Amino acid sequence: VSVRVAVDALGGDYGPRVAVEGAVRACRENDIHVVLVGPRDLISTELARTGGDGRITVVDAPDSVAMAEKVTRATLKKRSSIQVAIEQVRDGTADAFFSAGNTAACWAIAKLVLGTLEGVDRAALAAVMPNLSGHTVLLDVGANANCRARHLEEFAVMGSVYAELGLKIPNPRVGLLSVGEEETKGNELVKEVHEVLRASKLNFVGNVEGRDIFLGTVDVVVTDGFTGNVVLKASETLATSMMKLLKQELMRSWRTKIGALLSKPAFLAIKKRVDPDEHGGVPLLGINGACLIGHGKSDAYAINNGIQAAARFFTSGVNEGIVAALKMLTRGGGHHPATGTGTV
Amino acid sequence: VSVRVAVDALGGDYGPRVAVEGAVRACRENDIHVVLVGPRDLISTELARTGGDGRITVVDAPDSVAMAEKVTRATLKKRSSIQVAIEQVRDGTADAFFSAGNTAACWAIAKLVLGTLEGVDRAALAAVMPNLSGHTVLLDVGANANCRARHLEEFAVMGSVYAELGLKIPNPRVGLLSVGEEETKGNELVKEVHEVLRASKLNFVGNVEGRDIFLGTVDVVVTDGFTGNVVLKASETLATSMMKLLKQELMRSWRTKIGALLSKPAFLAIKKRVDPDEHGGVPLLGINGACLIGHGKSDAYAINNGIQAAARFFTSGVNEGIVAALKMLTRGGGHHPATGTGTV
Repeated sequence: VSVRVAVDALGGDYGPRVAVEGAVRACRENDIHVVLVGPRDLISTELARTGGDGRITVVDAPDSVAMAEKVTRATLKKRSSIQVAIEQVRDGTADAFFSAGNTAACWAIAKLVLGTLEGVDRAALAAVMPNLSGHTVLLDVGANANCRARHLEEFAVMGSVYAELGLKIPNPRVGLLSVGEEETKGNELVKEVHEVLRASKLNFVGNVEGRDIFLGTVDVVVTDGFTGNVVLKASETLATSMMKLLKQELMRSWRTKIGALLSKPAFLAIKKRVDPDEHGGVPLLGINGACLIGHGKSDAYAINNGIQAAARFFTSGVNEGIVAALKMLTRGGGHHPATGTGTV
Repeated sequence: VSVRVAVDALGGDYGPRVAVEGAVRACRENDIHVVLVGPRDLISTELARTGGDGRITVVDAPDSVAMAEKVTRATLKKRSSIQVAIEQVRDGTADAFFSAGNTAACWAIAKLVLGTLEGVDRAALAAVMPNLSGHTVLLDVGANANCRARHLEEFAVMGSVYAELGLKIPNPRVGLLSVGEEETKGNELVKEVHEVLRASKLNFVGNVEGRDIFLGTVDVVVTDGFTGNVVLKASETLATSMMKLLKQELMRSWRTKIGALLSKPAFLAIKKRVDPDEHGGVPLLGINGACLIGHGKSDAYAINNGIQAAARFFTSGVNEGIVAALKMLTRGGGHHPATGTGTV
């Protein structure tokens, strides 16, 4: 049976044109069933243009949530494409949700409509950061500003399960973000969480520093939503600024213009390497349903990747894995129940 | 009268050879008097090699602090080049201190030897980050993990004075690092500090996000030492990784190799743009003395720049400005005493 993904047809900077095109590609290339959610007329027009696909169904949702719209306003729109698409997952008419739209709105609506997984107190937004040898999962980046130790413990478990089942990294190395590798450094929260993670069954390698996010020394970096959000936004902007600066400098003379032309394959390779579109989307971890969010600048290719990633997230069993791992934590105080050493 | 700078001759990855060469350059080019501190024999040999300069004096300090040495160990070495060089400032035999050595050790020793400025509860390490149009001062990046509102208020004042007098940015715009521009977002500390800064006489533009560090939308970004340190280390590593990745990709084929050769002026321009060596060094703000720290990878050119920057820091009156600005804060609760509205 093929996976059914509910897609927010209005999500992303390029609107329904690319969302519909991406959906059609996902159906054709991967035998995914897509439920396109948005204004019916708009979607029909786009479907007619691309030729459509028998695996696509349309669900009408007249309202849209703007990319910069405030969450408090977005959650009031009960017939928005985001809300109605997420309801498909709740009602069992879809297995997963994908949007390239307003991340904060998707997150808030997903929490309201689907709730959190059993045992999850705080859902997390995970970012998948490129490093020299692969990817590092950084979480939480979702602006969960005031985190307690229990929340970071959950983030560690969810990040580890996602890295293992979602990204196929065996026995993922988990690091706790701090300001020094010595255990004595870091703030009070870090010290508390360090002890908890050391006693857990996770492959906890200890505290890591900001640089480790991009070095590939660990697979999962755990931090509070404030620090994670700041680091993510700073990194995204730095990378973009550097590429912009390079372009400016390359356009200064004929020599460098020709150099740029010849160097193009290298620039494209790097773009592909650091491009979030290649990866497909970031998951809302801890939500009771498979929800993936793509980059706002997603083109049809990226939307297709995102829909595939949402389907994979569903079949990979990340959510079931999170529930099982958290159950072990609460039952065994970090020990596997089978060892008999856990306190029940 | 020319400024006298005490230079840690052992600081930096390249040892006394480049430190001495940089010192000689600083004397010749800018009429600075340098007190070179380190093992006398070693310094004499290097001075003989470069020809020396009449404006250089040597003070013997037999011990060295390694780049990765723990602060607790480094502070025990009472005859280290760092300790003895900072003592020159304390004893009035030098006006400023410069080292390209172990930043954490310099900081700890400076606090022990010189203490903090009047009114400063917590000294801060400021980073000067390149952005598309100039530089942004980010502080604290010094791993002051547990900050209170009063500390961030001090950071804001010190960063603003440094930007204005040290970097010659008129009326610097100060932003508070948070996870959203809306005042309601951010953690408890941010909310508290936001109110304090809004009531101050600083040019406070409100909360900013991680991206603003590299956008040039503000001149000073204030944050706690945990977040600042993580962002700084992540950014440095991301920038280095991207350049490394680009180099790898450019070496893959003859076409891109020739492209790289032709593009070289652009790469050099970017390197210069983001290179900390160009800037000279980062100040230890709030320390009762002019102390600047250069990058470990400083060559003679960078050491020369750093020594000049230390001299400029001394003459620019940043420290006097900080003391005056903090006095206004405590006296007037954010109001200038002349307005008569302050509570004494």
